[in-house]
Amino acid sequence: MSLEHKRHTLAHLLAAAVKKLYPDAILTLGPAVDNGFYYDIKFSKEPSEKDLKKIEKQMKKLINSWDTMRGEVVSEQKAREIFKDNKYKLELIDEIVAKGEEITLYTAGDFTDLCRGGHCAHPKDDLDMKAFTLAKIAGAYWRGDENNDMLTRIYGYAFDTPQELQAYKQQLLEAKKRDHRKLGKELDLFTFSPLVGAGLPLWTPRGTLLRELIIEKIQSLQSQYGYERVTIPHITKKDLYETSGHWEKFGDELFHVHGQNDQAFVLKPMNCPHHTQIFASRPRSYKDLPLRYMETTMVYRDEQAGELLGLSRVRSISQDDGHVFCAKEDIASEITNLIAVIRSFYSALDMFNDGDYWVSISVRDKSTPQKYLGEEATWDEAEKILEDVAKKEHLTHTVVPGDAAFYGPKLDFIFKDALGREWQLATIQLDFVMPQRFNLVYTDAQNEKQTPVMIHRAIAGSLERFLSVLIEHFAGAFPLWLSPVQVVIIPVSDKFNAYGEDVMQKLQAQNVRVEIDTDSETLGKRIRSAEKMKIPYMLIVGEKEVNDNTLAVRSYANGDLGTQTIDAFLEKITTEQTSHRA
Amino acid sequence: MSLEHKRHTLAHLLAAAVKKLYPDAILTLGPAVDNGFYYDIKFSKEPSEKDLKKIEKQMKKLINSWDTMRGEVVSEQKAREIFKDNKYKLELIDEIVAKGEEITLYTAGDFTDLCRGGHCAHPKDDLDMKAFTLAKIAGAYWRGDENNDMLTRIYGYAFDTPQELQAYKQQLLEAKKRDHRKLGKELDLFTFSPLVGAGLPLWTPRGTLLRELIIEKIQSLQSQYGYERVTIPHITKKDLYETSGHWEKFGDELFHVHGQNDQAFVLKPMNCPHHTQIFASRPRSYKDLPLRYMETTMVYRDEQAGELLGLSRVRSISQDDGHVFCAKEDIASEITNLIAVIRSFYSALDMFNDGDYWVSISVRDKSTPQKYLGEEATWDEAEKILEDVAKKEHLTHTVVPGDAAFYGPKLDFIFKDALGREWQLATIQLDFVMPQRFNLVYTDAQNEKQTPVMIHRAIAGSLERFLSVLIEHFAGAFPLWLSPVQVVIIPVSDKFNAYGEDVMQKLQAQNVRVEIDTDSETLGKRIRSAEKMKIPYMLIVGEKEVNDNTLAVRSYANGDLGTQTIDAFLEKITTEQTSHRA
Repeated sequence: MSLEHKRHTLAHLLAAAVKKLYPDAILTLGPAVDNGFYYDIKFSKEPSEKDLKKIEKQMKKLINSWDTMRGEVVSEQKAREIFKDNKYKLELIDEIVAKGEEITLYTAGDFTDLCRGGHCAHPKDDLDMKAFTLAKIAGAYWRGDENNDMLTRIYGYAFDTPQELQAYKQQLLEAKKRDHRKLGKELDLFTFSPLVGAGLPLWTPRGTLLRELIIEKIQSLQSQYGYERVTIPHITKKDLYETSGHWEKFGDELFHVHGQNDQAFVLKPMNCPHHTQIFASRPRSYKDLPLRYMETTMVYRDEQAGELLGLSRVRSISQDDGHVFCAKEDIASEITNLIAVIRSFYSALDMFNDGDYWVSISVRDKSTPQKYLGEEATWDEAEKILEDVAKKEHLTHTVVPGDAAFYGPKLDFIFKDALGREWQLATIQLDFVMPQRFNLVYTDAQNEKQTPVMIHRAIAGSLERFLSVLIEHFAGAFPLWLSPVQVVIIPVSDKFNAYGEDVMQKLQAQNVRVEIDTDSETLGKRIRSAEKMKIPYMLIVGEKEVNDNTLAVRSYANGDLGTQTIDAFLEKITTEQTSHRA
Repeated sequence: MSLEHKRHTLAHLLAAAVKKLYPDAILTLGPAVDNGFYYDIKFSKEPSEKDLKKIEKQMKKLINSWDTMRGEVVSEQKAREIFKDNKYKLELIDEIVAKGEEITLYTAGDFTDLCRGGHCAHPKDDLDMKAFTLAKIAGAYWRGDENNDMLTRIYGYAFDTPQELQAYKQQLLEAKKRDHRKLGKELDLFTFSPLVGAGLPLWTPRGTLLRELIIEKIQSLQSQYGYERVTIPHITKKDLYETSGHWEKFGDELFHVHGQNDQAFVLKPMNCPHHTQIFASRPRSYKDLPLRYMETTMVYRDEQAGELLGLSRVRSISQDDGHVFCAKEDIASEITNLIAVIRSFYSALDMFNDGDYWVSISVRDKSTPQKYLGEEATWDEAEKILEDVAKKEHLTHTVVPGDAAFYGPKLDFIFKDALGREWQLATIQLDFVMPQRFNLVYTDAQNEKQTPVMIHRAIAGSLERFLSVLIEHFAGAFPLWLSPVQVVIIPVSDKFNAYGEDVMQKLQAQNVRVEIDTDSETLGKRIRSAEKMKIPYMLIVGEKEVNDNTLAVRSYANGDLGTQTIDAFLEKITTEQTSHRA
């Protein structure tokens, strides 16, 4: 019995219960979703969240009469007669008829609904009534269109077993505690302003430092492999995207820019076309290749207001971007380098252990060759390289035919967070098309013109999305190297401030990011405040510490670490910091 | 005799000579300018640059009959009669009449022109005919409007003495050699792409490194004074500028951004309003102040295509920006800090010596108090602080009444380049208005709400303009700390490549930016190539150097420095580099 069928059946059961309790409620649509089901209903008097228990009780009562659930095909006329008072169902019937499909009704107990099917045949036996719960009520427009009627959506969570339901509710609770929007505010990382607009985060000093630490880490790893930074403007004439082919595909979806002058521009939604122009700015020889450009820069996407969500979905996206221009012969070594960078970066986050990640190798679907541009032989070779490198590098990987882009195959790195949720973060994509469209060439050893291959890569991807994942994964308690403030010194009272300042200077001299909290608050309150900010180390200094020239060390992760000398503490955190500086 | 009067008189003489040689030429306007004069003329058959000599000869002939130059006031009727065949002069007469001003004609020799006055009374005696030259011909629209007729503009350079003219021509020649557009290409620093658009530079790896070295220098100097980086998006709802007041003033001049959604945005032309929103994101106490934000980020200005010029005038402007939010009591110390940063930065460029710079203190014009916002007492105090600090810091300064912005007084730092041209680069501006408009507050020690003062500051200003100045000032030969490539190793032949690589690794380990040129070109060609790239040091390694474990050192600035050990060379450049790391 598929879970989706169970969820869909529960949506029917919900609708039946609602009709018992609210006879004049008008039913519309009720599908199964990822974590359960919902039903959109037009009420004359809306229920509140408190009423959910009552509806749930009614569902548990009704199930007793739902031994079977059966479908029947009916005529258009009969369907219209049955739903004559329900304009929503009549609209659905219009659509079914327009498509020339059969009209089916499904009945269980004394409840019949217009439905495409996909249920339990024996709801009473198939459903575990302890494995679902009604979750919440929200508003929803009919068919998701804000010009339509506003309906009431009742959500339920549903799983195969009560244990799975419990685990899911626990995960939700944990996710709520870790919500990056909540933690972002508490840790003072970013903010939004109604004057600036939704989806446009403003990064505070702490948040900027967090971003910069990530950027610096990625760039220093990459510079070991010959990557060099470049800098491009955020706007361009549309000519650039007409050449790249993006204009035809995405022209309508771009942000358009114009001033008083005739020349109009677009705000860039990606950086690759700009980067080709740096490659193209002078003649290139095989001796210059591979050319490896990297740049962390904002791109802009015209997301709908309703789709914006904290840092997960924004309009200003900071891309950790980079492009390699190389000869075909260099593909394998360039990909190997990039895997080394990805491995180092995610290892520093302790996210590259077995079971924490897997790699999806997207190759073409050979049955539809017309969907892909570039030579057959090049594709064959490139796909083989990707798989060979993945094997050689002992990456947990799966080959997914049909997932390649039209311009080339790719490797996607998928990571599992602390709550078990999967995120596609790093990516390496081959591109045989863009260099041709921009007519990029280099001279080979035989003095012949050749077209380079382009490799698009992201290590963290969008910094906003990456940080939303990271904040929730670490619940705001970042590894030492990534903590905006690594150490806070808390003098027990004013008398010990001078010693605290001394300690601070010694730590600063070793490039430790340290603050001192000499606020007039009580010691307890200052300790709680440092804990709330999830600062990795607290150094409490009082009479004893001053006399012995020591520190009382408290770790956020491990609690009280006892008394240490300044040198011992410095050595400890230097080791901790550099152990991740792979 | 003022130079401007001489130049204006020469414009008349040019017009008279043109009328002798091209009797059907129609004269329009001919003013004095910074380096001489020009006259805009409608020709039936345009002269070429070759004809300038002929016209100049004619001017030198005519001057003999120009003993005096006299003005007379004429009636509108008479003026219209005289210029009845010249639609441009008739248009000027219309304007003079509309303003209710007198119409004046000036005559010298047999040449009469409509003119406001300002000439030499005795041209033949007053003008040194060896102190001017006709310089070039260009197109110009009537009244600068592209909808009007295209005219021919003839330029002349003119000075008091032939020596000054010679010096100016020499400076032009030098400036041409140093033209940052030419050097930018030769040194591979930046490029423009017709697909991306005019005024939108793309920065190559070398150019980006140059930018980053400047940014890093400024930011590290500032971080010593508690400045912290922040990050903002490049777009905003117009609401932000409605609140700041910029919308009313500059709304039409901004780049407007819109996608498919209803929400429209504007591309930011400045960063201060965004930064206020980070200040406003949480309650602030006097203990948090001063808050000092810094950010190097691009702003966009809708410049006309005709006004764009290399990096001097661009549409994407990288601002080295920063804002301090502080209590009034902190103004003096914050300004003192900023002067220290400016002094260190420009000293590292060897540009802060006496005579190389001066400071303009812009204060209000007390006769027009209505032009300034904020309290009288605050202004008095702030202006006094600026002057006091300038004195205390021994800055060469001049107080300029009436130059203050409506929102506060300021300090501008004006630097002289190698060609003697002056550039306003650094600036410190007080702002009493914006914090109020955004309703920014902090709680003082008495728990009262107070409005902070805002200080806008730029150290380099726009990186594009700054680099255009710097490239020309140094003629591309940057100080060691600022050179994208500091050292190039040139092995005499293949046999010595391994030793060269060894040396390279030793230098890289000390963070020297070093390259090796193992190209198959001749030694001479590789040396010339390094000189063309203006790389500070060349290390030539051959048999002798390998045997002795030494280097043959050549400096771009000082030529052959003889043979040195690797350690001696390392010590030398480390000293040179850190001597500027003030």
